[in-house]
Amino acid sequence: MQSRLKIYNSLSKVKENFEAINPPHVGMYVCGPTVYSDVHLGNVRTFLSFDIIYRYLMHLGFKVRYVRNITDVGHLTDDSDDGEDKIGKKARLENLEPMEIVQKYTNGFRKVMQQFNILEPSIEPSATGHILEQISLIEKLLENGLAYETGGSVYFDVNKYNEKHNYGKLSGRIIEDLIAGFRDLDGQDEKRNKADFALWKKAVKGHIMKWPSPWGIGFPGWHLECSVMSTKYLGDTFDIHGGGMDLKFPHHECEIAQCVGANGKDPVKYWIHTNMLTVNGQKMSKSLNNSFLPEELFSGNHSLLDQPYSPMTVRFFMLQSHYSSTLDFSNDALKAAAKGYKKLINGLSICHDLKYTSSEDETPSEQQQSQVDQIIANCYHAMNDDFNTARTIAQLFNLLKKINSISTGQLSGGQLGKEHFDKLIITFKTFVQDILGLLEEKPVDFESFLHILLEVYAEAKNNRQYDKVDEIRTRLKALGIVVKDMKDKIGWAYEE
Amino acid sequence: MQSRLKIYNSLSKVKENFEAINPPHVGMYVCGPTVYSDVHLGNVRTFLSFDIIYRYLMHLGFKVRYVRNITDVGHLTDDSDDGEDKIGKKARLENLEPMEIVQKYTNGFRKVMQQFNILEPSIEPSATGHILEQISLIEKLLENGLAYETGGSVYFDVNKYNEKHNYGKLSGRIIEDLIAGFRDLDGQDEKRNKADFALWKKAVKGHIMKWPSPWGIGFPGWHLECSVMSTKYLGDTFDIHGGGMDLKFPHHECEIAQCVGANGKDPVKYWIHTNMLTVNGQKMSKSLNNSFLPEELFSGNHSLLDQPYSPMTVRFFMLQSHYSSTLDFSNDALKAAAKGYKKLINGLSICHDLKYTSSEDETPSEQQQSQVDQIIANCYHAMNDDFNTARTIAQLFNLLKKINSISTGQLSGGQLGKEHFDKLIITFKTFVQDILGLLEEKPVDFESFLHILLEVYAEAKNNRQYDKVDEIRTRLKALGIVVKDMKDKIGWAYEE
Repeated sequence: MQSRLKIYNSLSKVKENFEAINPPHVGMYVCGPTVYSDVHLGNVRTFLSFDIIYRYLMHLGFKVRYVRNITDVGHLTDDSDDGEDKIGKKARLENLEPMEIVQKYTNGFRKVMQQFNILEPSIEPSATGHILEQISLIEKLLENGLAYETGGSVYFDVNKYNEKHNYGKLSGRIIEDLIAGFRDLDGQDEKRNKADFALWKKAVKGHIMKWPSPWGIGFPGWHLECSVMSTKYLGDTFDIHGGGMDLKFPHHECEIAQCVGANGKDPVKYWIHTNMLTVNGQKMSKSLNNSFLPEELFSGNHSLLDQPYSPMTVRFFMLQSHYSSTLDFSNDALKAAAKGYKKLINGLSICHDLKYTSSEDETPSEQQQSQVDQIIANCYHAMNDDFNTARTIAQLFNLLKKINSISTGQLSGGQLGKEHFDKLIITFKTFVQDILGLLEEKPVDFESFLHILLEVYAEAKNNRQYDKVDEIRTRLKALGIVVKDMKDKIGWAYEE
Repeated sequence: MQSRLKIYNSLSKVKENFEAINPPHVGMYVCGPTVYSDVHLGNVRTFLSFDIIYRYLMHLGFKVRYVRNITDVGHLTDDSDDGEDKIGKKARLENLEPMEIVQKYTNGFRKVMQQFNILEPSIEPSATGHILEQISLIEKLLENGLAYETGGSVYFDVNKYNEKHNYGKLSGRIIEDLIAGFRDLDGQDEKRNKADFALWKKAVKGHIMKWPSPWGIGFPGWHLECSVMSTKYLGDTFDIHGGGMDLKFPHHECEIAQCVGANGKDPVKYWIHTNMLTVNGQKMSKSLNNSFLPEELFSGNHSLLDQPYSPMTVRFFMLQSHYSSTLDFSNDALKAAAKGYKKLINGLSICHDLKYTSSEDETPSEQQQSQVDQIIANCYHAMNDDFNTARTIAQLFNLLKKINSISTGQLSGGQLGKEHFDKLIITFKTFVQDILGLLEEKPVDFESFLHILLEVYAEAKNNRQYDKVDEIRTRLKALGIVVKDMKDKIGWAYEE
């Protein structure tokens, strides 16, 4: 019997059976990137984790509307509502219009997502695309007495909210600690309470990204966009909200407060948070010089890297641990991942070539059949256990052993029977390609192979084996390559 | 002496010297796609034409801010401000949320642009991302007495505008003809005048994409977004505005009226319009069943296509005619383009291998040098003449003749001298790769080459040429491929 999908809910802090609010539909919102710098590997891990969740939910037959936003305004350099807009600051440093910064890093983000074969979400809304909706939400909060305007800015009144609701229920923070713990910073005095957070900020002189509002010219607070865009596209209450664990507080806590305060409803049924990356056991950070960009990984061009690692090697590597565990980058682990990845891909190619054969006198072995059934059930069981890709991969290697046995003739198709044979092949392919999203990475420099062939050609020519010379020439011509016999060497060109 | 860049200005109807408003900066705005269906080849031609203009301006040293919008709301199925929103309609048909439609076709559009190696613009703003700015522009027009509100919608008053300005100056339409010529349609009676156009439309029941405004819930008119986004990112007056010639009226005419009406300034210095695609001499259209999608071209999977044509073949093909001429698709023309493209790419590979050599007794030939200078000047002259890629390509083939002569030894490096040799090579590479944007398309199925090698391997094994067997095995291993000697055949796998 197939097991049921369970999800660890960061809100309830227990693993719960997954029950979609409105099956077969599932609404999932994930906090996307703030597009002011190159995407780093920690981001990649987060989006890869939700890519797996998206793929697996679709595999289970759910119709998933997956919303992942682009933060292109309002995210300040300082979490306590001070500092500069991250994008505005970068625009100043790079001497570009803020929207050029947004475009540049959004393009970079999309490219990296593509390299890792991370699927596009169903909707990718941007904060600047929803200013009016954000203003409407602020108006609702003001109406409900949960926000106050002061000096052209609007703040959320955390104490007032906490009278009827529970601010801190996601992150476990205690409001009294929050109030005591906040640093005293310029501009904080506008707030009634140090735990309050900005819904709308007045634009100071020189601020570029700004819009008119009922409270004057300004820009929305960072937490607002996600409340607005998630509920606009998924409804007041939706199934899944995800993000990196660093977003739990204050960002996600504030999202809940804003939605509950405006709509009176808890916005999210299941909260999912992904864990961090470490490098050789240390937190990945720019100041420790142990953080690298995807491009550096692919080129191997970084002092901590022994060699280049391909996107699919890194994808496989990340899937070898559960999303809620920390994941440690090391050369040894990546080299092992490269081997594991190639094993699975070679397995796909065996699946592709393998034909079912059975001799007349064969009858299926119940033991073999039940072994295959058991491994397949284990694959699902692992994924159903909060999307445990690490255990799923181990089970796929068990499936692969069976496939290899058939390929080498140790096990015959007839011993499994057609139905089990097909199930074995299809399950393996589906898990590797569709659920884990692993693609075959082909060598792109066909020239290396061509050069070996041209050497064989030259040798045959020297040995006056003209039949062979002609054959290679003809075969290459069929591939659009013309061999060019030159004075001192053998060249080639594309056929014109 | 180098010639100066001239641009045919659709507004003045003459070829003018290009003088940037604020050199070295150039602002260029191009009307992007309405993302409700697959991008068609006519769109590709338009965006390719502006890609060339963008690349060439950058090559000349201009710092170009290139804005190309995404229309994700407000474009109605009927040009006279009636009918359904194109995206809303598609959302209904495909049973998706409108923003899912937007995401789906925006992704598709980006993929096609990438396939054709069309560069990303500097900013890619969307209409829904600028609702507030659109509302502000309408307010200005109302203040200036050039618009009127009626029943929750706002219209531009063309007659009023025409008292002081010239509505029709871009398209050459006469306002009296326009008023007489418009069909009588439902809802038109809201307008004072049949030539008036919508700035804001009241959302009727069931309309999904809508926002609050001073005039009630509704959505912006289609022409508004381009006025707003071009001036927001490029200033009230900017250098270049482009689009397909079908957009000249009403879209671009209305853009001018909106900007002049609101800001009192003509928004655009140079208007550039690209011409249409025809197929075997007929207009490309769905109803004639002679329109095809990029994917159909690449696969050859269409009754009108003899074979597949690669993206770079099509790119080369399109560049063989001037953007302002019609361009006729035919199998013969595409096959010729495939040859021409490969000639240029083979030329690149010769450039890559060619080293400058000169014997001691050689002195440069002034005649050869001046021939090279002349061809290079011709290349620039052709591009400077309103971006005439057709003539540029002809000149590149002349450059290639020189390169081939050096490669075959008919012409020596010494006859040109180092400086002219370098100039020849660099100019050819720069024009092919950077200005025309032609990439080398590599055969991706390295397996075809590998299979020929494996046959050579099998033959060597049969003939007991074990040295050769070992060598091929070793060479392939270095490329990450393991040869597998199986009972009945030779297989291969990625090295694990």
